[in-house]
Amino acid sequence: MESEKLRQKGLLVVVSAPSGCGKGTILAEIMKSDENYFSVSATTRAPRPGEVDGVNYHFLSREEFESRIAEERMLEYAEYCGNYYGTPADEVEKQRRAGKNVFLEIEVQGAMQIRKKCPDAVFIFIVPPSVETLAERLRGRGTETEEVIAKRVAEARNELLRAPDYDYIIVNDDLDEAIDDLRTVLRAEKMKTENSKEILSEVIGK
Amino acid sequence: MESEKLRQKGLLVVVSAPSGCGKGTILAEIMKSDENYFSVSATTRAPRPGEVDGVNYHFLSREEFESRIAEERMLEYAEYCGNYYGTPADEVEKQRRAGKNVFLEIEVQGAMQIRKKCPDAVFIFIVPPSVETLAERLRGRGTETEEVIAKRVAEARNELLRAPDYDYIIVNDDLDEAIDDLRTVLRAEKMKTENSKEILSEVIGK
Repeated sequence: MESEKLRQKGLLVVVSAPSGCGKGTILAEIMKSDENYFSVSATTRAPRPGEVDGVNYHFLSREEFESRIAEERMLEYAEYCGNYYGTPADEVEKQRRAGKNVFLEIEVQGAMQIRKKCPDAVFIFIVPPSVETLAERLRGRGTETEEVIAKRVAEARNELLRAPDYDYIIVNDDLDEAIDDLRTVLRAEKMKTENSKEILSEVIGK
Repeated sequence: MESEKLRQKGLLVVVSAPSGCGKGTILAEIMKSDENYFSVSATTRAPRPGEVDGVNYHFLSREEFESRIAEERMLEYAEYCGNYYGTPADEVEKQRRAGKNVFLEIEVQGAMQIRKKCPDAVFIFIVPPSVETLAERLRGRGTETEEVIAKRVAEARNELLRAPDYDYIIVNDDLDEAIDDLRTVLRAEKMKTENSKEILSEVIGK
């Protein structure tokens, strides 16, 4: 069925997780496949030394960013410290049309904006086996004070309360298993009826 | 995560397919796992020689069947040739509570009755790679006349038009791949947020 799968539009996959859940490691592994594409955010902040336009961010002027908001060409955006950050709709659409699954790594508020604009997006929340494990992992890094760890754990607990707004929960207990879980979700989503319309027409024929 | 998965309620999985799509073979393989349970239908028709109550069917009197309909203890039912056939709700619920995925192999009308009563059920439609392949398969059996094959193909095409009422489309091109596809759907469904509530409460803790 390879040829038919290639003709399918790619998925839009929104991934959120409290920090320290291994989201970055999981996504880095998933991105090794040509089928998957990591969306580059747009921002109005100035590039830092070494940052490359179109790689780290799409660097846009404030005027350009605001006109794209007005034209509904941002799937989601937010303003932090006087700068805009957002997800450019054009690029996401172009990659999906080319059959690539486009991944957005964003926090809960942004995810909920996407939910409204793209009802066909898939929302995945990665969680630690327990909040206690998360505290231990942070402690294990040896770079954070107990105060910072306590704050992070409280934040994580708050974020976890938003998990019911997502479609899937992946528990990152074992890294390989979590990666496999994410691949399983992608495969199943490709079998969803709404993603199989072309395949169905082909099966039925004329 | 094995222990947590065991605590999850089993899925209710409704599988339909035009005849000749290999549905029986796929389900027989899936039923080899203890996690999966094939629902036994109830009927008011008399047992045929060799049929065992509770194995081939639950054989019920007409009065018993009708009182169960009145008590909403049939997930779906239909009357054919003066006999009732249906899916007993109690057994499905009991097996799901025990953590088993309960499979119903029913046709489209019955499936749509289930959709109304059990919004959490998973609806899977198995399709052949093409209607032409189906004709070839039927021809290959060597037991059907061309007239019967033409009728079957026309029926299959009609049934395939109902596929959009299902959640997932599995193309049975390669049998092993189709079995693996079905397992993938089950695994992904177990990760759905609505099936992960207990896991989430455990992650968050107190």
